[in-house]
Amino acid sequence: MFSYEREVRFHEVDAAGIMFFPTFLVIAHEAMEDLFAALDGGYRRLIVERRIGLPAVDVAMRFSAPLRFGDLVTIETATLRLGNRSATLRYRFNPTGSHSHCAEVEHTVVCTDLDQMSSCDMPGDVRAIFSSHHV
Amino acid sequence: MFSYEREVRFHEVDAAGIMFFPTFLVIAHEAMEDLFAALDGGYRRLIVERRIGLPAVDVAMRFSAPLRFGDLVTIETATLRLGNRSATLRYRFNPTGSHSHCAEVEHTVVCTDLDQMSSCDMPGDVRAIFSSHHV
Amino acid sequence: MFSYEREVRFHEVDAAGIMFFPTFLVIAHEAMEDLFAALDGGYRRLIVERRIGLPAVDVAMRFSAPLRFGDLVTIETATLRLGNRSATLRYRFNPTGSHSHCAEVEHTVVCTDLDQMSSCDMPGDVRAIFSSHHV
Amino acid sequence: MFSYEREVRFHEVDAAGIMFFPTFLVIAHEAMEDLFAALDGGYRRLIVERRIGLPAVDVAMRFSAPLRFGDLVTIETATLRLGNRSATLRYRFNPTGSHSHCAEVEHTVVCTDLDQMSSCDMPGDVRAIFSSHHV
Repeated sequence: MFSYEREVRFHEVDAAGIMFFPTFLVIAHEAMEDLFAALDGGYRRLIVERRIGLPAVDVAMRFSAPLRFGDLVTIETATLRLGNRSATLRYRFNPTGSHSHCAEVEHTVVCTDLDQMSSCDMPGDVRAIFSSHHV
Repeated sequence: MFSYEREVRFHEVDAAGIMFFPTFLVIAHEAMEDLFAALDGGYRRLIVERRIGLPAVDVAMRFSAPLRFGDLVTIETATLRLGNRSATLRYRFNPTGSHSHCAEVEHTVVCTDLDQMSSCDMPGDVRAIFSSHHV
Repeated sequence: MFSYEREVRFHEVDAAGIMFFPTFLVIAHEAMEDLFAALDGGYRRLIVERRIGLPAVDVAMRFSAPLRFGDLVTIETATLRLGNRSATLRYRFNPTGSHSHCAEVEHTVVCTDLDQMSSCDMPGDVRAIFSSHHV
Repeated sequence: MFSYEREVRFHEVDAAGIMFFPTFLVIAHEAMEDLFAALDGGYRRLIVERRIGLPAVDVAMRFSAPLRFGDLVTIETATLRLGNRSATLRYRFNPTGSHSHCAEVEHTVVCTDLDQMSSCDMPGDVRAIFSSHHV
């Protein structure tokens, strides 16, 4: 389990006064970037120099309570499934201090050669990170 | 079927050079806003004056091809399911001129009293719009 | 003068209920992208294939009235200054139907070789577009 | 001087591969939100409960170097001018570890009654925060 904490920002609410729901995905991706900060050179080097990316092929989101401006939320990230070229991460959004989550995201990514834009085997260091958070 | 066309903007790509995947949801919501432009006062009056919203409770996304800066995409929106208080919209993203879609989003919303933040029966005019795009 | 019209979207308001002020710059950039759509291959080919960009070096913004969700706004773009390697665009934001503007942005860009990330002379077709909107 | 540190995220770069320039304003606003975290209830309570906001009336930005995905940047915020109803903040963006800044933003805000959307005198606790960072 990998933990990332984040406040809902002033501009992240919508005209209904709650956090705009695509922003859950933005925050989930931030959690993934931080998960891969453990790589040599971080997620940045993976993308920019090694030209290997993890584009989404499938996403499922369930929402049970809204977030509002100023809410502090902890995102718990875990690997649900790990294949040769793909993996599924699950992100649980818990308002900090609460025991129940307000949203859950499942995010399946495919290891991709960004120059060819075709799938490729997962490098060992990338797999090791997914593996270390497997539940 | 409701059609909405949109270009991928300069800032909507990510460090991998493709449209950042949460932006598919942003665009899907734009399509929904335009779908409800047919209401008296549009989606704006529904939210701001009548204080009725359609927050997401469930989202499923599948991606088969990336979008890039400058791509023109047509989003076809249809109602898949219509209940008393909830509905599911499906958005198909087709690069303009192409016959196959690059992404599909299913988006279940619950009709909500925004002051109470509790579900409520769908007003007749809102239902009529969902109903007119039922497939 | 180049005209671009745009609605303020559901997610573009902030917790104060008005359009988040950095979004004026996002919309100004959309207007610039559309201004350069007249290039062969549009702004996309300039950036992605020719690897010439127009990064900002200086921005000035003045706001006189807020925009809200659902507002329709017309952005009038003009070239204020045109040099060998730089130019200044001015964007006036007018709520559609109104005669006074609610915001004005001045945006100085420098023609840049994106591979070297150094300034370069403006290509003729880029200059021609700035020139045709000079006031 | 108030210090805020932040990484440039995966989705914050544009098709030219550098941080999209309006994002400097987004980050400046985050710094301001954190500056006002010292208020009782933070910036959130000021906006949502007390209904007092600080909309921008004037912004000036100068850029001297681009930021890229993964860059860590420290934003130094200071009050340049403090009036009865308005104040000017200056944000200097320094790539962490560097001694020169890559961008500078001046941001003039007016203390505003958000229900009336008209200017009002600055409450004492808001003034105290501006005052404590005056240079």
